[in-house]
Amino acid sequence: MKSLKTINKLLQGSLKGDPGYRIKGVNSLDSAMEDEIAIAAKDLPDTKNIKAGALVVKEGSNINHKNLIYVKDPYIALSELIGYFFPDKRFCEGIMDNVYISPDAVIGKNVSIGNFSYIGNGVLVGDNCEIHAGVVLYDNVNVGEGTKIYSNVVIREEVVVGRNSIIQPGAVIGSDGFGFARDNEGRPVKIPQKGNVKIGENCEIGANVCIDRSTLETTIIKDNVKIDNLVQIGHNVKVGKSTSISAQSGISGSTEVGDNVIMAGQVGLADHIRVGNNVIVAAKAGITGNVKDKSIVAGIPHQDLMSWKKSHVILRNIEKYIDKIKILEKKVDKMEGK
Amino acid sequence: MKSLKTINKLLQGSLKGDPGYRIKGVNSLDSAMEDEIAIAAKDLPDTKNIKAGALVVKEGSNINHKNLIYVKDPYIALSELIGYFFPDKRFCEGIMDNVYISPDAVIGKNVSIGNFSYIGNGVLVGDNCEIHAGVVLYDNVNVGEGTKIYSNVVIREEVVVGRNSIIQPGAVIGSDGFGFARDNEGRPVKIPQKGNVKIGENCEIGANVCIDRSTLETTIIKDNVKIDNLVQIGHNVKVGKSTSISAQSGISGSTEVGDNVIMAGQVGLADHIRVGNNVIVAAKAGITGNVKDKSIVAGIPHQDLMSWKKSHVILRNIEKYIDKIKILEKKVDKMEGK
Amino acid sequence: MKSLKTINKLLQGSLKGDPGYRIKGVNSLDSAMEDEIAIAAKDLPDTKNIKAGALVVKEGSNINHKNLIYVKDPYIALSELIGYFFPDKRFCEGIMDNVYISPDAVIGKNVSIGNFSYIGNGVLVGDNCEIHAGVVLYDNVNVGEGTKIYSNVVIREEVVVGRNSIIQPGAVIGSDGFGFARDNEGRPVKIPQKGNVKIGENCEIGANVCIDRSTLETTIIKDNVKIDNLVQIGHNVKVGKSTSISAQSGISGSTEVGDNVIMAGQVGLADHIRVGNNVIVAAKAGITGNVKDKSIVAGIPHQDLMSWKKSHVILRNIEKYIDKIKILEKKVDKMEGK
Repeated sequence: MKSLKTINKLLQGSLKGDPGYRIKGVNSLDSAMEDEIAIAAKDLPDTKNIKAGALVVKEGSNINHKNLIYVKDPYIALSELIGYFFPDKRFCEGIMDNVYISPDAVIGKNVSIGNFSYIGNGVLVGDNCEIHAGVVLYDNVNVGEGTKIYSNVVIREEVVVGRNSIIQPGAVIGSDGFGFARDNEGRPVKIPQKGNVKIGENCEIGANVCIDRSTLETTIIKDNVKIDNLVQIGHNVKVGKSTSISAQSGISGSTEVGDNVIMAGQVGLADHIRVGNNVIVAAKAGITGNVKDKSIVAGIPHQDLMSWKKSHVILRNIEKYIDKIKILEKKVDKMEGK
Repeated sequence: MKSLKTINKLLQGSLKGDPGYRIKGVNSLDSAMEDEIAIAAKDLPDTKNIKAGALVVKEGSNINHKNLIYVKDPYIALSELIGYFFPDKRFCEGIMDNVYISPDAVIGKNVSIGNFSYIGNGVLVGDNCEIHAGVVLYDNVNVGEGTKIYSNVVIREEVVVGRNSIIQPGAVIGSDGFGFARDNEGRPVKIPQKGNVKIGENCEIGANVCIDRSTLETTIIKDNVKIDNLVQIGHNVKVGKSTSISAQSGISGSTEVGDNVIMAGQVGLADHIRVGNNVIVAAKAGITGNVKDKSIVAGIPHQDLMSWKKSHVILRNIEKYIDKIKILEKKVDKMEGK
Repeated sequence: MKSLKTINKLLQGSLKGDPGYRIKGVNSLDSAMEDEIAIAAKDLPDTKNIKAGALVVKEGSNINHKNLIYVKDPYIALSELIGYFFPDKRFCEGIMDNVYISPDAVIGKNVSIGNFSYIGNGVLVGDNCEIHAGVVLYDNVNVGEGTKIYSNVVIREEVVVGRNSIIQPGAVIGSDGFGFARDNEGRPVKIPQKGNVKIGENCEIGANVCIDRSTLETTIIKDNVKIDNLVQIGHNVKVGKSTSISAQSGISGSTEVGDNVIMAGQVGLADHIRVGNNVIVAAKAGITGNVKDKSIVAGIPHQDLMSWKKSHVILRNIEKYIDKIKILEKKVDKMEGK
């Protein structure tokens, strides 16, 4: 149990209420009980059903409650509260029994490695990393300090992962890019893929994501990029800093995505294009050409979001307009004396 | 070899033909030979090329054949016939040599566990379960009786899987939800994901599916839900009973899907919406808002299937209507004396 | 270091320049330095920034450079050059320590098997195969000579993989098809999936791809088929020779795809349809019916690419046409004396 005073200090907030009130944990607004704290990110029409003992709200918020902590950003506060009440546990202490580590690999201090993981030749694993069970690090993989790799992840040869990144289960980093020539008879001929992948610091790679290695150069995921589950990143792609890519989206080969881009789910980007900085891409959009900085786009092929919405409203009413055309035709025919 | 009498009894059908006829197995209608049985779910224009020794048909069917078994539902019969002629074999007898089981885990009776599987602290595995090779069950996972988990599946901490469910290879259950705050400089900041996932009884989870854990609460997959390969289920989603989700579909965070919903392939659902009971969603649809019970929807954004079809027929002929407009313009201009 | 004479001989090209010029390796056109060779597949507006010591160009090309090798197909040359300068290394020599091999399996000559791999009963592994770490081959899998299976791949029982194929990490071959009957109360009832999958020679299966086994027959991937990451192949699908399927595409059950088809990314094919030979499918298309040989299709539902483009150009300008209709209505009303 923690006092609201302690929690307020943690959040660097401003407390209105009882500093001695005791809080057991953090929960969602709907589920939090008397001994729990919750965030209320937006103004609430009605607080009757809220049982939480304290609420964290945005500065200037109009919410009434016996115990309020005002903060700049309730979501940042939520991140801090969950980290505080649910501290991360390591997968295991040190290196478990049944792990293969090449004699040629270098493992840092305070590293955890779970059973049935495979660490190849020349691999470097930084201090404080966690490598869970059934992970395969091929030769010469380089994992930065503090990075956490969940079970059954595969990282192919020569791939570099920066510090404090997280790779969810089943992700594959450094699989061969999809590159083929065609022989005389039209059969595809593999172009060997011998480049690599570099992932920055503080990145998150979702479950069962695939990031392909470049043919000869480097597929690059910059710092603070967050990639959701089942995303496909083609060979030689560059993804800029702090960009966020939602589930099941795909980026085709050699395409560049700028910084701070937000891609919703099931988006597709064509190959060899450039999406600028601070672009927002609506769900299921198909981007077929370059996109300027700060654009908001939707549709297949993509267009400005507002234009796309207008077109779709019209399309939904298109029958009405077709009827108008038919009526006009009749009237004009009549006037023409037909 | 089994007699048709025996098979008819199994299917609780009505036999017309030779009860002593001997059947070796079940096969598809195209491939079944003289000593095999097949189902003919629909009336057939022509039975000349059918070589099957016996056919299972729907009650009231008009198909002619020397050996017919009439049943209420030929597909249910197919399920029974395949189960009968191809009984499931267990992956292995008992627990193989090279398995890690935490001393703190509780393993039921008659459980099979394949090599290189990892069973964490506090895990409960019910009686008669099969856990194949390379499976990772993180701490405190709870697997109900008779559930089968194929190879290289990863189930993260605190996840609950009900009885008699099947999880196909490579699926990841309980990966972190995709939740981020933004710091002062716009960089994404991870909101730790400390809820869990509960999967009901008689569920099927496809290969390489990802189901994210909730931030603080529970992502729920109810009984009899069937999920095809490569589907993404976001954090805090609820999926109702007997719902079926086809391959590569995705459900965004906090969305609720009702009972008996049928989602075709590559469908996407926005976050925080509610799809009612008995809804049918056409392939590739993008659902952007709530959907009422019993609706049939298609398109991006979704609309009623019939409206969507009409709009698309018009769109395909749109050039014709544009021409009509141009002709009208000319005629009207002429009348106006221009 | 190799002489251009040697490289020219390898490529069976025609050298214009210094046969004694020494080359260390192959690199991309942008990155290659004085001691490297690059391909220039197309004519270049400007060669000022090119530092490569030699260029491989198409016969008849107009590019100027001190060292040129003319070849029929620069991409085939690229494949050969990379293979030459980056020879493949085997994952490991022979069979590593901690591998499970059923006494009943047959392993060919010169096979590599990585740690924590599982080889079931009756498995056949051909000569010169590589099976990396954490691979699971269920009972009676048959892997042809020279095939390479990357880490954490799962191949289910009875699946056949042809010679010289490559399976990228995390792929699942032979998972259960998505087939269900419905019981009296509308609950889905599993139809057991007891067919198998046959993959041809020289195929490539991408990372985290899923290929389902057929209910009773065989899902077939013919020779030289190339499948990109995260693709879904439903049960009983047939894919013809030399067809290429880009990332995140899906083919529904019992559909047949012809030879030499090119499917771009995120495409979906309905079930029980036939896509002809030499068809090209644009990204994100949704194919809802049969497609004739040599068609080029796009859209949801699919249509001829050119028609699709025309419709979309009109759709983007649809507001303009709606305005025209409104003006016409006013004019006609006026003429009618309203």
